[in-house]
Amino acid sequence: MSEAGEPTASELLAELDGIGRDARGGWSRPGFGPVATELRRWFATTAEAIGLNVAPDANGNLWAWWGEPADGAVVTGSHLDSVPGGGRFDGPLGVVSALVAVRRLRAGGFRAARPIAVLVFAEEEGSQLGVACLGSRLLTGALPADRARELAQEAGLDPDAAGRDDTALSRIGCFVELHIEQGRGLADRGAPIALASGILAHGRWRIAITGRGDHAGTTRMADRADPVVAAARVILQVEAAALAAPGARATVGRVEAVPGGTNVIASRVDLSLDVRAGDGAAVRALVARIEESGSLEAARNGCGFAIERSSWSDEVVFDVPLREELDRVLGGVPALPTGAGHDAGVLAAHRPTAMLFVRNPTGVSHAPDEHADDADVAAGVDALERILRRLAS
Amino acid sequence: MSEAGEPTASELLAELDGIGRDARGGWSRPGFGPVATELRRWFATTAEAIGLNVAPDANGNLWAWWGEPADGAVVTGSHLDSVPGGGRFDGPLGVVSALVAVRRLRAGGFRAARPIAVLVFAEEEGSQLGVACLGSRLLTGALPADRARELAQEAGLDPDAAGRDDTALSRIGCFVELHIEQGRGLADRGAPIALASGILAHGRWRIAITGRGDHAGTTRMADRADPVVAAARVILQVEAAALAAPGARATVGRVEAVPGGTNVIASRVDLSLDVRAGDGAAVRALVARIEESGSLEAARNGCGFAIERSSWSDEVVFDVPLREELDRVLGGVPALPTGAGHDAGVLAAHRPTAMLFVRNPTGVSHAPDEHADDADVAAGVDALERILRRLAS
Repeated sequence: MSEAGEPTASELLAELDGIGRDARGGWSRPGFGPVATELRRWFATTAEAIGLNVAPDANGNLWAWWGEPADGAVVTGSHLDSVPGGGRFDGPLGVVSALVAVRRLRAGGFRAARPIAVLVFAEEEGSQLGVACLGSRLLTGALPADRARELAQEAGLDPDAAGRDDTALSRIGCFVELHIEQGRGLADRGAPIALASGILAHGRWRIAITGRGDHAGTTRMADRADPVVAAARVILQVEAAALAAPGARATVGRVEAVPGGTNVIASRVDLSLDVRAGDGAAVRALVARIEESGSLEAARNGCGFAIERSSWSDEVVFDVPLREELDRVLGGVPALPTGAGHDAGVLAAHRPTAMLFVRNPTGVSHAPDEHADDADVAAGVDALERILRRLAS
Repeated sequence: MSEAGEPTASELLAELDGIGRDARGGWSRPGFGPVATELRRWFATTAEAIGLNVAPDANGNLWAWWGEPADGAVVTGSHLDSVPGGGRFDGPLGVVSALVAVRRLRAGGFRAARPIAVLVFAEEEGSQLGVACLGSRLLTGALPADRARELAQEAGLDPDAAGRDDTALSRIGCFVELHIEQGRGLADRGAPIALASGILAHGRWRIAITGRGDHAGTTRMADRADPVVAAARVILQVEAAALAAPGARATVGRVEAVPGGTNVIASRVDLSLDVRAGDGAAVRALVARIEESGSLEAARNGCGFAIERSSWSDEVVFDVPLREELDRVLGGVPALPTGAGHDAGVLAAHRPTAMLFVRNPTGVSHAPDEHADDADVAAGVDALERILRRLAS
């Protein structure tokens, strides 16, 4: 406890533990619906208790203002929704840290020269409507208008009011998101806090390996065009290509053999491919290597190889002057890239934006093993408080 | 046409083309239900038209007798059901060839010294109730009594009457099944007809590769325990082990990555493994090699490997004196093993049994591309007629 018995960020986090528990493990908190309503109610109550004024915007995001809403504010926050079966830190850590940092500034009598707000973005994980960072994408107009209306309707928002919100954008002078680290970068460095340098470029592809369906018992090994074996060769090429590209990640997470019978040589295998690397050119080069070697490897089993891109996100480089300023405030901390998307990444195309990472000793993300020690959570709050103090001075 | 305008076997086959067509391609003919009823009605009508007496047994098999049922008969036949999306020859070719061969013997005034019957087995493919060779397994008592009752009930048979049928077994003096070849053995040899030497030993296994679920964007390649990559290595070991064992076949036909998300490193991959080889010892040796090298390969990605047998069939060696006699009747034909199960293989444990294969130029099986030329179909009927003549003399 601190400030005369006020709860710490870790204690606030614990208040959320009963909301959206998943019996299969971890927490499942979709961006809309009863669990989201309970989380938003908790946020509103907690933010009002420390004297903030809470109001939703037309895109499902929830704002808590120190004073009246005004342009050019220092905004901080994150999200409360989770992936299915996710951990307890991804999202909520940034929200509770923001609330405690602002509460401390107020308790310490800080006189802000710029307005300050805590912002909770709607449906960051995309687990309910399938679009990651929905709240920030709607707010910044990153989605085509028709698609935005459609998604707003599905989310139970007013489709006439949802979409690009220039008023809200004007209110964000800069944005800082604190987030649990989703890898072992800080654990390996023995440091509690990092600033994000950027978000890796990221594309998704569908790969189809086509062979010849046949009888598993009667077809001689030499007569086969087995796409399961060809797909195995392709998967090893994906791993090899990513290992050869420093900092890159390439993942086959979905594998479907068609028709998928025990005693049947499949006729086709569909693979998903997720590739992330420092910039778009690096991603494209990696995929070109996978395409070249994958085609050759599939042909060794007499199979065809086709690849089609299904999504693309350019790399994000967070505002360099802002990052340098925050680094000075924090006395020098590591700068780490991340392979995960964030609302801060969406906002970065519009406003000076920064991210703070808090050490995750397991490195695990999107699963219950994700973790931050109380001391590191407290270090994150301290860092965020110093940052807000500097930016709002 | 032959025998004063009677249809050939190819023409009888064509009469079935309208029954059980699958809009996605080929024919889907489950062993029970409306399509099976239509096929059985066609068989009864056609067999009665050539003067045979048709009666079902308690296990869903359909018998057509030349004269009255009696012990020690020369029995020939196959099945009319198909796999989903199968071809038009697998099963029906043996039935129509039997009908035409018997019709010709009768038309030619052959005086049989032993009774002759045409037998249609129920649900050979196991596509409806999941048990291959259901009709012959029920008849021979190859299934535990409880399981037999349960399956009979599902099939709409009388569970009190179904099961081992000693009367029916006594009636089978010997059994000859004509079948389309399910590989390229005859095509490679330039011969239209072969005798089966035996059926490969056959086992099925489930392999589980366990890794660590993680975030596809944030987890460095070096920090992963990705079971999809490990499974790829295991699949290549399966292929290598089978290629190194002459005549063996090993197939992974089913691959399931769990949870199977595009942006998620899977936590587990389940594989099916189907292995066939000349005898049980060869199958066991091959699986032992797969287990040894598969465990090592999975460990290269920090993953676990577990394998569990789900089914087992010993090799079948068809009755050697019978095969030698038929080979003399046919003037010397190739003897080929097969990797596919057949009702003849089930019966072989109880009665002298033989199989005749008809050339399949595509080698494809269980798919619409399976084929036999009319001339080869006619050669099959000729061979079967000569065999029945010899065996019933």
